[in-house]
Amino acid sequence: MSSFASVDSATRQTQGDGITAEDIQATGAVATEDVANYALTLGDDALMLAQRLGWWVSRAPEMEEDIAIGNIALDLVGHARFLYSYAGTAWNKTEDDLAYFRDEEEFRSARLTETENGDFGQTIARQLLMSHYFLGLYTALQDSTDETLAAIAAKAVKEVEYHADHANQWTLRLGLGTEESHRRMTEGLYYMWPYVAELFEDLPIHTKLAETGEAVLPSSLRDEFDRNIAYVLEEAGLEIPQVPSARSSQRTGKYNEYRGYILAEMQSLARRHPGATW
Amino acid sequence: MSSFASVDSATRQTQGDGITAEDIQATGAVATEDVANYALTLGDDALMLAQRLGWWVSRAPEMEEDIAIGNIALDLVGHARFLYSYAGTAWNKTEDDLAYFRDEEEFRSARLTETENGDFGQTIARQLLMSHYFLGLYTALQDSTDETLAAIAAKAVKEVEYHADHANQWTLRLGLGTEESHRRMTEGLYYMWPYVAELFEDLPIHTKLAETGEAVLPSSLRDEFDRNIAYVLEEAGLEIPQVPSARSSQRTGKYNEYRGYILAEMQSLARRHPGATW
Repeated sequence: MSSFASVDSATRQTQGDGITAEDIQATGAVATEDVANYALTLGDDALMLAQRLGWWVSRAPEMEEDIAIGNIALDLVGHARFLYSYAGTAWNKTEDDLAYFRDEEEFRSARLTETENGDFGQTIARQLLMSHYFLGLYTALQDSTDETLAAIAAKAVKEVEYHADHANQWTLRLGLGTEESHRRMTEGLYYMWPYVAELFEDLPIHTKLAETGEAVLPSSLRDEFDRNIAYVLEEAGLEIPQVPSARSSQRTGKYNEYRGYILAEMQSLARRHPGATW
Repeated sequence: MSSFASVDSATRQTQGDGITAEDIQATGAVATEDVANYALTLGDDALMLAQRLGWWVSRAPEMEEDIAIGNIALDLVGHARFLYSYAGTAWNKTEDDLAYFRDEEEFRSARLTETENGDFGQTIARQLLMSHYFLGLYTALQDSTDETLAAIAAKAVKEVEYHADHANQWTLRLGLGTEESHRRMTEGLYYMWPYVAELFEDLPIHTKLAETGEAVLPSSLRDEFDRNIAYVLEEAGLEIPQVPSARSSQRTGKYNEYRGYILAEMQSLARRHPGATW
């Protein structure tokens, strides 16, 4: 896990193979209303998780980890930007409009993305689950019949592969580490597990867009997710939590109390100074 | 300032031209006690500023800015890691030892690096001053007779060039923006200016190491710094604050009350779980 090469300039980056905003603009692609809503949901998951992870910058247990978690958070902000930019084409809105000027009840993020950081074990438990979910999702979404979504997915998948690897490594390290680290990782998994099911819930919009091949049906991703998580946990000497799923989905229904705090932090400056000059 | 290309993967990066930890290890270079103390001071400036900037991740006024400031913070953590790693060779300590297990009074960071973020204008004012200071410093330090310091500087200079450019652009945007943004930028500059002088203060260790060509004499950087800042401020319709310098240096003397808060956030997890497994 240790390499100074990985801290190479975070600001001077090479162009990846993926899509850029210019590409979105150049194609003149405009998302349909349904695709825009779908992209918004995906973007909300990425942004909420990014906000939670950003907290760790300068608070992680190692300097190397400050950089690793910080980079993961910034990757996720990047995914949200692409998805919001594309969603915005349906409504003539910018990424910033969608990130900063929607209210709590307009976000569709899954509850797992908004859960509390807790200790480092709890955060890593969430990273393990979220990154494997994202990996399955973006892998499949590369085949979307919506070319822009496919291009965004092709870009994101390379990054979430790294995120999943990072989470795997930490899960092994904590699971196989001390009694204390094993206990904390176990507790983190128990805390997060009830919210996993929501990620794989098929909503009407998924079913509709899956028929045209534009979206990925969340339920179709569950088996591989379970296999991958089971494999990592077994290697780490950890068990799949035996806890029931939370009963209500917050993508469509009641959202939890954390969302308000997250949005307050995220939106207050942009809302205090709407317009581009501040 | 706007380009999605700049949000290219933050986690998959190409190898720069600069030094890596492996290089430090491979050369077997061991810092002298004086060079180690000098490197530690430089590292402390970078780390403290990084901690302050990290706060902005997910709180910036634009999504693009979340990423930009986040990347700058991570670059600075990277510089601190190189400098601490090299300093550590003198005392058989790791970067984490030096970051997490020194007390308040053992840090040598300049007061400017620890000042409060305030509003975005205040943060940009500090970024303008710090990034131009770093740019002059690392430009000159590339010629250090200490090869490791020279290599670290060669790597850092490419990044702080970008940081200075970022600060210049925001200074122009806020200075030439609305009345409100101009006022906030002006106030930010007034708040930060008294702490500029400390950056250019020659301490005995500088004088000693400058004689052998290992260190850069801070005072030698002041003229160019003043020219560059004056140029940017003039372009932005802003004035150099007419305020006296703070009288005491905290590099050698009393440090301010912020350092304790910063270190509490930064060090608490590592100290609660000393040792490598958590």
